[in-house]
Amino acid sequence: MNWKSEISAAADRIAGHAQVTPIMESRALGLDYPVEMKLEHLQHTGSFKARGAFNTLLGVDVPQAGIVAASGGNHGAAAAFAAQTLGFPAKIFVPELAGPSKIALIEQTGADLSVVPGEYANALTEAKSFEEATGAMQIHAYDAPATVAGQGTCFAEWDAQGLTADTVLIAVGGGGLIAGALGWLQGARKVVAVEPETSCALNAALQADEPVDVTVSGIAANALGARRIGSICFELAQGMTSVLVPDAAIAQAQQILWQAHRILVEPAGATALAALISGAYQPAPDERVAVLICGGNVSPDPLNG
Amino acid sequence: MNWKSEISAAADRIAGHAQVTPIMESRALGLDYPVEMKLEHLQHTGSFKARGAFNTLLGVDVPQAGIVAASGGNHGAAAAFAAQTLGFPAKIFVPELAGPSKIALIEQTGADLSVVPGEYANALTEAKSFEEATGAMQIHAYDAPATVAGQGTCFAEWDAQGLTADTVLIAVGGGGLIAGALGWLQGARKVVAVEPETSCALNAALQADEPVDVTVSGIAANALGARRIGSICFELAQGMTSVLVPDAAIAQAQQILWQAHRILVEPAGATALAALISGAYQPAPDERVAVLICGGNVSPDPLNG
Repeated sequence: MNWKSEISAAADRIAGHAQVTPIMESRALGLDYPVEMKLEHLQHTGSFKARGAFNTLLGVDVPQAGIVAASGGNHGAAAAFAAQTLGFPAKIFVPELAGPSKIALIEQTGADLSVVPGEYANALTEAKSFEEATGAMQIHAYDAPATVAGQGTCFAEWDAQGLTADTVLIAVGGGGLIAGALGWLQGARKVVAVEPETSCALNAALQADEPVDVTVSGIAANALGARRIGSICFELAQGMTSVLVPDAAIAQAQQILWQAHRILVEPAGATALAALISGAYQPAPDERVAVLICGGNVSPDPLNG
Repeated sequence: MNWKSEISAAADRIAGHAQVTPIMESRALGLDYPVEMKLEHLQHTGSFKARGAFNTLLGVDVPQAGIVAASGGNHGAAAAFAAQTLGFPAKIFVPELAGPSKIALIEQTGADLSVVPGEYANALTEAKSFEEATGAMQIHAYDAPATVAGQGTCFAEWDAQGLTADTVLIAVGGGGLIAGALGWLQGARKVVAVEPETSCALNAALQADEPVDVTVSGIAANALGARRIGSICFELAQGMTSVLVPDAAIAQAQQILWQAHRILVEPAGATALAALISGAYQPAPDERVAVLICGGNVSPDPLNG
């Protein structure tokens, strides 16, 4: 797979559908170096997931039965939003731990929503059954080429906006976003994977030298709690730097983003920054760093809680 | 006063102290035209006020007694932050209606804070007494040339970032921000003043053809509730377009910014957009519009409420 050309094609495909998200550089985060940030949580439905969803739907003939997705919340909201925008029916399965604000976000799109007991993997099982029964098209949350290429457009866009960092830190769940980052940036910039200690499918896979099942828990689990890393991500991630952060550092990074810049994000959205705040990743003296702010669907909803 | 050169000098003075804030264009606000936005609520202490505070303190010899400011909250936080950053003592008077989240923001800077019963004008009276008694330097919230020039840097920065709009909508309280906007943009772009129906010192002054006292109330009063428009603003504002919006439209604009883009702002921060949402300002078919998102200090604080 030539990821750079796949991502360039995806960028052309989703232009006008995905939001071009703003960038900024901050020296107010309590660190002794500046941090470039891309505010991807301002994307439609509050996370980067809209990119992969639009790229998937715009690249194929969608069946009359529409689309189906399993999601911890953000992917489901994005798939439902993209389907609604393009005029297709959508069926979304979410695990209970998605939480009320993400469930409300999906309901607002008009999608048919089912809440499944347990974790993400259970919702995925239900989605696969629905796909077989109805002929609806599955939009995988992270382990499909069109999803990865769509998420990769975030980094093509950032490059075009003037990203200068040597190193880009990215939160990892199932690996769709970081696979897109590696597909676009690999060879040009260092990419660092950041996972919660209690939801670390990529780190465990890199240690085991193969994708393995992990248990998932913690404050970012409804966004980053994939039980097993995607195979596309695992292949691209060989040899990359992977760090883990405790939930306390994620919560602290959330507070810092809010106090310093009135950027309100969910725990997953603050996880990459937590690696700098906690020192889990320590840049070299002259190393310029960037952090992708990936998700803003905080719970409780501050205006509708 | 040559405002363009004052504002250029201010921009040089505050470079590295004020945050360069990001811009974006949205088609997701429920309007049938795109809106350019500058996310000035990501500024230090959550509003544009840090620009004027830094410009004031960096342009003079600050007395040993430090600085004093009266504020509905945002200016006090900005003045206290700038003083702390530059190493000066700060005394801040706020009216009760500033509310707990803005009061907490000021306390975090380490400033000496007094909460005054009643509205902004009462806090200003106290600040003037303190100035006379101690020799501390008054930083006016809006009606001083250094404040206006500092706020004007927001628009010089926006121009440099590629603002394309024909028309820029700006919320008005005491008039420091819009005076800075007029100082920079007048002659090049149309500037529209937006005020709440219940806090409309500029609109009342334009109708009376002189600054007059108004009563202030409503959901944006702790940021926009000046009793009388500043004289600098009034002079610059002659002949400008001024519109009023009801509180319900401000609340709706707050909801839209949050739902569409996870931008969480205080009512004042959504007031300019409310003019488009409500139709109080209706652009011509080919008129490109921009909205300054000016303040993010929402109450209750979503992470510390």
